[in-house]
Amino acid sequence: MLHNNQQYWASINQQIEAHLRKVVTIRDPVSVFEPMHHLVFAAPRDTAPALCVAACELVSGGCSGGREQAVAAAAALHVMHAASFSREHLPLSDRPSLIPRPRPMIHHVFGPNIELLTVDGMIPFGLELVAKLDDPAHDISDRILRVIVEITRAIGSQGVVNGQYSELLYNQWNNNGSSHVESIQTKEGGLHACGAACGAILGGGSEEEIEKLRNYGLYVEMIQGMLRLSTMMSSSSSKERSSMRVEVLRNLALKELEGFDESKVEVMSGLIEANLSHV
Amino acid sequence: MLHNNQQYWASINQQIEAHLRKVVTIRDPVSVFEPMHHLVFAAPRDTAPALCVAACELVSGGCSGGREQAVAAAAALHVMHAASFSREHLPLSDRPSLIPRPRPMIHHVFGPNIELLTVDGMIPFGLELVAKLDDPAHDISDRILRVIVEITRAIGSQGVVNGQYSELLYNQWNNNGSSHVESIQTKEGGLHACGAACGAILGGGSEEEIEKLRNYGLYVEMIQGMLRLSTMMSSSSSKERSSMRVEVLRNLALKELEGFDESKVEVMSGLIEANLSHV
Repeated sequence: MLHNNQQYWASINQQIEAHLRKVVTIRDPVSVFEPMHHLVFAAPRDTAPALCVAACELVSGGCSGGREQAVAAAAALHVMHAASFSREHLPLSDRPSLIPRPRPMIHHVFGPNIELLTVDGMIPFGLELVAKLDDPAHDISDRILRVIVEITRAIGSQGVVNGQYSELLYNQWNNNGSSHVESIQTKEGGLHACGAACGAILGGGSEEEIEKLRNYGLYVEMIQGMLRLSTMMSSSSSKERSSMRVEVLRNLALKELEGFDESKVEVMSGLIEANLSHV
Repeated sequence: MLHNNQQYWASINQQIEAHLRKVVTIRDPVSVFEPMHHLVFAAPRDTAPALCVAACELVSGGCSGGREQAVAAAAALHVMHAASFSREHLPLSDRPSLIPRPRPMIHHVFGPNIELLTVDGMIPFGLELVAKLDDPAHDISDRILRVIVEITRAIGSQGVVNGQYSELLYNQWNNNGSSHVESIQTKEGGLHACGAACGAILGGGSEEEIEKLRNYGLYVEMIQGMLRLSTMMSSSSSKERSSMRVEVLRNLALKELEGFDESKVEVMSGLIEANLSHV
């Protein structure tokens, strides 16, 4: 089953990648689109975009409604992720952060000024990918506008509040343990929550479905964060505490998937199992 | 008449300012919204937002269609302008540019890291102001999506291509004179062209009206650029050449207004006269 699961996610990721190759090209003005192309494809892939497509499939119950839009929104989410990643790794500031976390080395092809300006261009470019989805034949403009608001909020908080948010998360876990899951849960959280909500919106999900999938995305992101921190912990007692917390989060995540089509819930929850299998 | 004209533009600007005060508040997270509030209101006011509202009024022929949305879009344009202005005046890089142009001194309350991150948040925040305009009672989602694409393109090219664009403009004028107006005209140009086009779209203008007003906005922006450069010229012959070029641009601008309701064209063209009267 895990094998099928992997195929499912790999196939979604291929479609997103193909869409990115189609829309992010090196064109005029080359001085803008060449560094943008580089930064978009140099950034490591994240699971939030795929979650957008999977959430759309989960709520649309097999019919293809909104799927094309979800792939395009997923591509936009990757552009946002790449922008945020590039901003964290500007040539001049690419140094260890206050919070210990593994920072992949990246190859800086362009100078800091170019990267700085390019990221400024990536945020509107990514949103344009979504705004252009409008199709007069299928009147889903209202859904697309809602997705734009979801993304603008997530990248606002990702870009700006990201640092504070991570720090808060890190401190809370360390000082107070798992009882603070609830207080963290209320924060708007990252690209996974956004991606899942966007997919559910584009797939025509109900308000309840959108909120359940948003929460699912939030827990997935928290589990990923927890696992990243855990790789940096040295003592076995803190590693144990951390794996206990992951288990709590995993159960909360799976609870959000109750009530959805069971045959599809399995692949959806596979996103968590895939994370855990890497540990 | 110039007096009435001034009152017209002042009244629009007051409405935009009131809208900005309403939507840009200091709220949670304060660490984000306090510097954002500062940067939004510290940036000098630009005429592009008012042009958006005036263009909407010009095409909607007196009925109030889209006006409320145009004021909100105008507020978003100011946020974009403030983001671009802040980026050009980051504490560490706030020094004379290669192209001589007057750079207003600004008071830096926050450090470069905070300003850098805040601007990252301002771009999505501004777009959210537009995306949230959707009103199910009046089905204008398609117009709003189009306005979002207009703005994402303008800030992409403003933020990223702005430097190259200004340089190009400057070099062309200096080397070749006014015969290159056409080649410059074909570039997507700045916030004024965008503002005028957005206003025309929200007011329900025809494609022809949208393009005519976009061109008008472009000429207004070019005249403003020309006048800024001219204040820095020392020789009387270059000042004379520059005022000749402004006259060419002014005629091109007024030509774009032909065919619109004449009683309203006068206030619209007042935007140029106001620029000229300051020289």
